[in-house]
Amino acid sequence: MAWTEHSIMARRGVAKGQPGKQHSITEASQGRYHYVYGPYAAPVLHVEPGAIISAETHDAFEGRITSESDRPSEILNFPFLNPQNGPIHVHGAEKGDALAVHIRSIAPRGPQPCGTTCMIREFGGLVATGATALLNQPLPEKVRKLHVTQDGVRWNDRITLPYQPFIGTIGTSPEIEAISSLVPDYYGGNMDLPDVGVGAIIYLPVNAPGGLLYLGDCHAAQGDGELCGVAVEHPTVTTVQVDLIKGWTLAWPRLETETMLMCIGSARPMEDAVRIAYRELIRWMVAEYGFEESDAYLLLTQCGRVRLGNMVDPKYTLGASVLKSIAGEAR
Amino acid sequence: MAWTEHSIMARRGVAKGQPGKQHSITEASQGRYHYVYGPYAAPVLHVEPGAIISAETHDAFEGRITSESDRPSEILNFPFLNPQNGPIHVHGAEKGDALAVHIRSIAPRGPQPCGTTCMIREFGGLVATGATALLNQPLPEKVRKLHVTQDGVRWNDRITLPYQPFIGTIGTSPEIEAISSLVPDYYGGNMDLPDVGVGAIIYLPVNAPGGLLYLGDCHAAQGDGELCGVAVEHPTVTTVQVDLIKGWTLAWPRLETETMLMCIGSARPMEDAVRIAYRELIRWMVAEYGFEESDAYLLLTQCGRVRLGNMVDPKYTLGASVLKSIAGEAR
Amino acid sequence: MAWTEHSIMARRGVAKGQPGKQHSITEASQGRYHYVYGPYAAPVLHVEPGAIISAETHDAFEGRITSESDRPSEILNFPFLNPQNGPIHVHGAEKGDALAVHIRSIAPRGPQPCGTTCMIREFGGLVATGATALLNQPLPEKVRKLHVTQDGVRWNDRITLPYQPFIGTIGTSPEIEAISSLVPDYYGGNMDLPDVGVGAIIYLPVNAPGGLLYLGDCHAAQGDGELCGVAVEHPTVTTVQVDLIKGWTLAWPRLETETMLMCIGSARPMEDAVRIAYRELIRWMVAEYGFEESDAYLLLTQCGRVRLGNMVDPKYTLGASVLKSIAGEAR
Amino acid sequence: MAWTEHSIMARRGVAKGQPGKQHSITEASQGRYHYVYGPYAAPVLHVEPGAIISAETHDAFEGRITSESDRPSEILNFPFLNPQNGPIHVHGAEKGDALAVHIRSIAPRGPQPCGTTCMIREFGGLVATGATALLNQPLPEKVRKLHVTQDGVRWNDRITLPYQPFIGTIGTSPEIEAISSLVPDYYGGNMDLPDVGVGAIIYLPVNAPGGLLYLGDCHAAQGDGELCGVAVEHPTVTTVQVDLIKGWTLAWPRLETETMLMCIGSARPMEDAVRIAYRELIRWMVAEYGFEESDAYLLLTQCGRVRLGNMVDPKYTLGASVLKSIAGEAR
Repeated sequence: MAWTEHSIMARRGVAKGQPGKQHSITEASQGRYHYVYGPYAAPVLHVEPGAIISAETHDAFEGRITSESDRPSEILNFPFLNPQNGPIHVHGAEKGDALAVHIRSIAPRGPQPCGTTCMIREFGGLVATGATALLNQPLPEKVRKLHVTQDGVRWNDRITLPYQPFIGTIGTSPEIEAISSLVPDYYGGNMDLPDVGVGAIIYLPVNAPGGLLYLGDCHAAQGDGELCGVAVEHPTVTTVQVDLIKGWTLAWPRLETETMLMCIGSARPMEDAVRIAYRELIRWMVAEYGFEESDAYLLLTQCGRVRLGNMVDPKYTLGASVLKSIAGEAR
Repeated sequence: MAWTEHSIMARRGVAKGQPGKQHSITEASQGRYHYVYGPYAAPVLHVEPGAIISAETHDAFEGRITSESDRPSEILNFPFLNPQNGPIHVHGAEKGDALAVHIRSIAPRGPQPCGTTCMIREFGGLVATGATALLNQPLPEKVRKLHVTQDGVRWNDRITLPYQPFIGTIGTSPEIEAISSLVPDYYGGNMDLPDVGVGAIIYLPVNAPGGLLYLGDCHAAQGDGELCGVAVEHPTVTTVQVDLIKGWTLAWPRLETETMLMCIGSARPMEDAVRIAYRELIRWMVAEYGFEESDAYLLLTQCGRVRLGNMVDPKYTLGASVLKSIAGEAR
Repeated sequence: MAWTEHSIMARRGVAKGQPGKQHSITEASQGRYHYVYGPYAAPVLHVEPGAIISAETHDAFEGRITSESDRPSEILNFPFLNPQNGPIHVHGAEKGDALAVHIRSIAPRGPQPCGTTCMIREFGGLVATGATALLNQPLPEKVRKLHVTQDGVRWNDRITLPYQPFIGTIGTSPEIEAISSLVPDYYGGNMDLPDVGVGAIIYLPVNAPGGLLYLGDCHAAQGDGELCGVAVEHPTVTTVQVDLIKGWTLAWPRLETETMLMCIGSARPMEDAVRIAYRELIRWMVAEYGFEESDAYLLLTQCGRVRLGNMVDPKYTLGASVLKSIAGEAR
Repeated sequence: MAWTEHSIMARRGVAKGQPGKQHSITEASQGRYHYVYGPYAAPVLHVEPGAIISAETHDAFEGRITSESDRPSEILNFPFLNPQNGPIHVHGAEKGDALAVHIRSIAPRGPQPCGTTCMIREFGGLVATGATALLNQPLPEKVRKLHVTQDGVRWNDRITLPYQPFIGTIGTSPEIEAISSLVPDYYGGNMDLPDVGVGAIIYLPVNAPGGLLYLGDCHAAQGDGELCGVAVEHPTVTTVQVDLIKGWTLAWPRLETETMLMCIGSARPMEDAVRIAYRELIRWMVAEYGFEESDAYLLLTQCGRVRLGNMVDPKYTLGASVLKSIAGEAR
């Protein structure tokens, strides 16, 4: 029996975690991709809880970086970056509910080399940027095109990295704001957190009617922090199952795997993102796992785990997690 | 002769800084106030460069906090906070231009006590918040209603603060984003910077056709940092003159007074806001005042001034300035 | 054959990683423990490279918190906290060299319950502190005394955490400064990084003649970030082997295990600690593993790992690492 | 009558603010200058409260940068930077007391050009540094030697800045630590805050017997933030009057002028320094000026002032102040 049969999605979802109708979003049916998370775009799809949706995602550059001699800053046109599929309207989703998104598969698509990473002028974790605004000269731009298959990401003759794909950007619409898909925040967005990978279930707060799920920006591999700002970006077919949990009001995204529970925070400076993630995790343990707050605080001090997602986006993203074996049974 | 006759607005504006047609935005003509800075709302007004506009602004709470026994967190309904007048469409404004906004007058309106300050649960510079997420218990909420006239803000029998009004939130629309009016950023917004006061000219980047100017959130008095997060908020009649500078592409807002030039940055952590402001000021001195970059850097080290606007909003705002007597003549 | 036979310590150490003379530091021979890392205390021991040293470490509270009814803030007496064994003078160590410290074993000592964790007033990752100075009331203090053996840390009837001990505080003396043992910095100190555990080799810069190694503050278990500020503190017998690498000038501590290479940074805000760690790792890969800087930067973007040590000390500590299988052979 | 006759120093000092015996510290009598604030150096002077002390201070480079063709990074030898006069032992000073230091005069000394500013490799507010560790190339170094007299700092043919001297580095010894004179912290140190100028009284916590006052690093002029990290450094004769306030236990330095009360905080990130300063100011207003905490918090929101000292040192320094006319009479 799959662990997902005991997941929160299965226990509390409107569709009880059961797969429903299948849908697909192709490049053609998507038409125009989106560069903001907001309520002002018409849904590309209306689904019922349980729906299984396969989406043809673009890479973060909409496929425009095609050669190692390309200069990203000449090609990219802010704010038209990080194209997103969606929005997907989930029937019955209302402010105060949560969407559950089970990531069933991610597969590369398109001609090889289908992976791209690069250094972009004034962008990245170890360079001066528009936000950390310094007088130093920018580094030269550099593009790497990479052969990516399910068997791995070929870096060079010696190094092949495992293919460990995840969804870099996924979330729901804010209620009245429309925020760049480059930003991560309370509704999800550009979190660039490798835990949002195949097999995991991410839970997202619903802020607007129908939830309005967006996703895109899948990564074939990424280290902690997404150091230079560009993971192994690649176009994919990504398949998710979407369920709806009524009345589960989340302040920030949460994530469940077979073995752990995670809360995700995004903020600057980085310590604020960790604080958000750990405070949410404590609140969750208190609300649903029977802990007293001070005991959860002391216990996570000894066994909490932190994953750095990105240290490059407008807000940094980290996840704080606890093993289910330690959290115990939900009540 | 007024200094404004030699201002950048006068020298480079389409209307040459000359006052044009008068307009007014009343509560009635505004109708619904706005809670985001974005391009998705229809303009309340279309004007030509030089237009003089008087707007009936609401206070940041839309007048809903009426008594010292009110509990802000029970009354306020995020994200419907910080109501803005506008958007105002300026004829001819295109991406890459700048709006010049000369603040001509700000006057309190409405029945006394028309001023409000308060402590709001999990909001402010010296408390745990949603972003600096801690386990400490929130402080009790507290409301002060204050008598505010042109003669001062009456704090108590002993203390009356001078009436030094400014526009807390002013800016243009982003190109495709719609951002909460609680946020300051490159387009202006909720900067809460006291220098944006009567007599000053603020220059704002145009990102969307017509510029789409919003403003509101006037403060009768405010200290550096807006410590608890709520200045002396009050409804006003605010009168500005709007001009348009073609082809002046600003990365961040700038401000001019009779004696100084200022660049304004908004970011977290706070040092990043100062870096933005000072780097922009150096770039300005290099581009238009004949300085070499290293000389401007060394000189501002000896004579630059920094004003802390807010240390409470989603991004902190600071301005870095230099005296015109030091910057010299623009070239 | 043990991996350590191919370690950097073995390849470059004066003693070639071979174990030398055995020494022990007992509570009696240590006499007064130390609360600063500095060159002003007389060495408790002079050793040759290769020396094996067993030290009776105190817990971070010098054993003064003995009951769950104790109030830490009444017992603890800043700056006399976090008592350290040492300093140990390593023959031949000069500024510009590195000490290699192989952690051979850590075992609990003393009567049960020998483990202590607690919430301390205005200290910790999720509370207002002296540095993040807020007006919120402090949380109540709380002490947990824990049964700790090699078999585990008994949290309660349901939860026993594995015994995963490491050295919380270890480092060399600065050249002329004497810094509180509560602080982590370029010389090591209070890093609270779980990777500094049994089996690992930590490399520390030598700043003062003899290196002047200090260590203490062993933890029986700790989560990422040491959330409340107090891990499972316990007194131990800790055994290390110390070697000396001449002319290896480190800006920050480095760590080696069988499978990975790590650089450690300590700073506030947290992003600066990650930047330090990753930049050092890139510099290491360039200097000794044949990478071009931009290639190391792009590669770590895809496969670097980050471990959060502490988010509670005067500086936060993180380690950035790469697998040896990816870094390749040292040149 | 001078305002100082009503100062806190006059009201509470052991010497009642009355000038006592005159002392001088010449280069010869100082002998070796100091590079750490700590208790391990022998006092250069023992004085009684009320003592007036004239000290020949060096500039921050100990006079070693003598030409505009010098390369600072080749000349400067960390940690032997920022030489300090002292320590001065004040009779009767004990942990828990405060020293009052009234700055009576600062005058340039030595041959012209006696002022120095420069850009130092990997140091400064708008460049990548050892703490904000990036991959960008450093800026070229650059030295300016400046003619400095009481009449001004001659920048170039067009610009002469007013001579507004202050003490860049002043403080007491920690109890057991010895901290680099490049660092500002709770005991004072390298605050680089222009308010510490002629006429002001700074109050410093006593941590070690005799207080052990150090001072040096006088600046002829400095902008807010000390942007490039090097103000107009110059050697001086600096004259201060030192008094002792028994039982006034300060967590951080405070400052008094004729018109205002200031608290000074030093931390990273910058918002933490402001928080420290404002919280201390609120605590002061509550303890000695009769305010309720929430009223002080709300009032400073409307009238507090913040001065940015440095944004370049290992901790950033800011002062938060309130007018005496608003604070009212001390009780």
